[in-house]
Amino acid sequence: MNIAVFGTGTVGPAVAAALVALGHDVVIGTRDPEATLARTEAGPMGGVPFAQWHAEHPGIRLTTFADAAAGADLIVNATNGSGSLPALTAAGEENLAGKVIMDIANPLDFSQGFPPSLDPVNTDSLGEQLQRAFPAARVVKTLNTMNASVMVDPGSVAGGDHSVFVSGNDADAKAKVSGLLADLGHRDIIDLGDITTARGTEMLLPVWLRLWGALGNADFNFKIAR
Amino acid sequence: MNIAVFGTGTVGPAVAAALVALGHDVVIGTRDPEATLARTEAGPMGGVPFAQWHAEHPGIRLTTFADAAAGADLIVNATNGSGSLPALTAAGEENLAGKVIMDIANPLDFSQGFPPSLDPVNTDSLGEQLQRAFPAARVVKTLNTMNASVMVDPGSVAGGDHSVFVSGNDADAKAKVSGLLADLGHRDIIDLGDITTARGTEMLLPVWLRLWGALGNADFNFKIAR
Repeated sequence: MNIAVFGTGTVGPAVAAALVALGHDVVIGTRDPEATLARTEAGPMGGVPFAQWHAEHPGIRLTTFADAAAGADLIVNATNGSGSLPALTAAGEENLAGKVIMDIANPLDFSQGFPPSLDPVNTDSLGEQLQRAFPAARVVKTLNTMNASVMVDPGSVAGGDHSVFVSGNDADAKAKVSGLLADLGHRDIIDLGDITTARGTEMLLPVWLRLWGALGNADFNFKIAR
Repeated sequence: MNIAVFGTGTVGPAVAAALVALGHDVVIGTRDPEATLARTEAGPMGGVPFAQWHAEHPGIRLTTFADAAAGADLIVNATNGSGSLPALTAAGEENLAGKVIMDIANPLDFSQGFPPSLDPVNTDSLGEQLQRAFPAARVVKTLNTMNASVMVDPGSVAGGDHSVFVSGNDADAKAKVSGLLADLGHRDIIDLGDITTARGTEMLLPVWLRLWGALGNADFNFKIAR
């Protein structure tokens, strides 16, 4: 599949590399490719600067959001939550129509410090915002409830014995995304229902952040025991 | 221990009976005992009317919030979220001072229909509201992330292989509550930190409600796989 991954932080490159390893053609979309490659600071989670990562992954092209989306069958939104609507707007509605948007971002609001709160929250979600903004696209919320390392290597935590959720209005889009999740090694894929159920999975973030603090690392995930 | 359980819905009686089975002296507090006993409708989850349950549990006295709290070492708040502050206010600040309030309620807001949203949420929580309102009490948020049947019989789901959280400012109060949880059969008790972490566990409710819908029953629980 031709896949565009939006976002050059910790999550986007990790997912891009994992999808390439599965045999997909992957490009990374960013607002300004030259500016992204010129960044020298480490990533927010202590990762290497993007240019270094990119040099180590020469098969993954970096381009604009619009160019990346134009050639893609499926778009992974791994931008910061506050940057998601601007990124998809920059991609262009015509480049999103009919396509699956796998939304793995969280609407974290750091305006009041750490730990962040969420915005939107409770009666709305980022997933719904994106679906409303691009009604011809098919948004599927998923993977936003775990660390990037667990997204792409679920076996690294408890032998893969944990859960991932999908939320979306389009059954075919959820099936495509669920196929990718299974290929990544996710075994317990729970379809919660339509895109409004993204409220629930985005609202897992606050306890995720507190668990990160209490456990001292991000090598954990939610399992729905039943 | 002398324990007062506030609330006569599904959760309060279930917890009261389980605590009696552990050997504790338990009373149930309600706003108006006569009115509670006069109710003939089934509980919201299809349980028996309270009077019938009470007749089957003659060892558990029903009394006012204030009388129940006055004789208790520990108070379990199992009221509806919207009724929690009124119930504890009716109990009287002097009857709460120094005591552990085990807050297992959720601030569900049904004003916009089903599924409910939360109020307060995101930058506040019911647990924090109660702690602010009764600063001399020691509030511990716990058990609010699972069905009543799982609270009192954790082994009924996945052999008990799942998690429960505690949030609170007072280490001794959290130790007392954790002891009760262990006595009930909970094996993975995760201390998230101070009472502000109750925001995270209360915000688990929206996905819990959607899982209830997706799975078709409430016989599940969150496990933190790690």
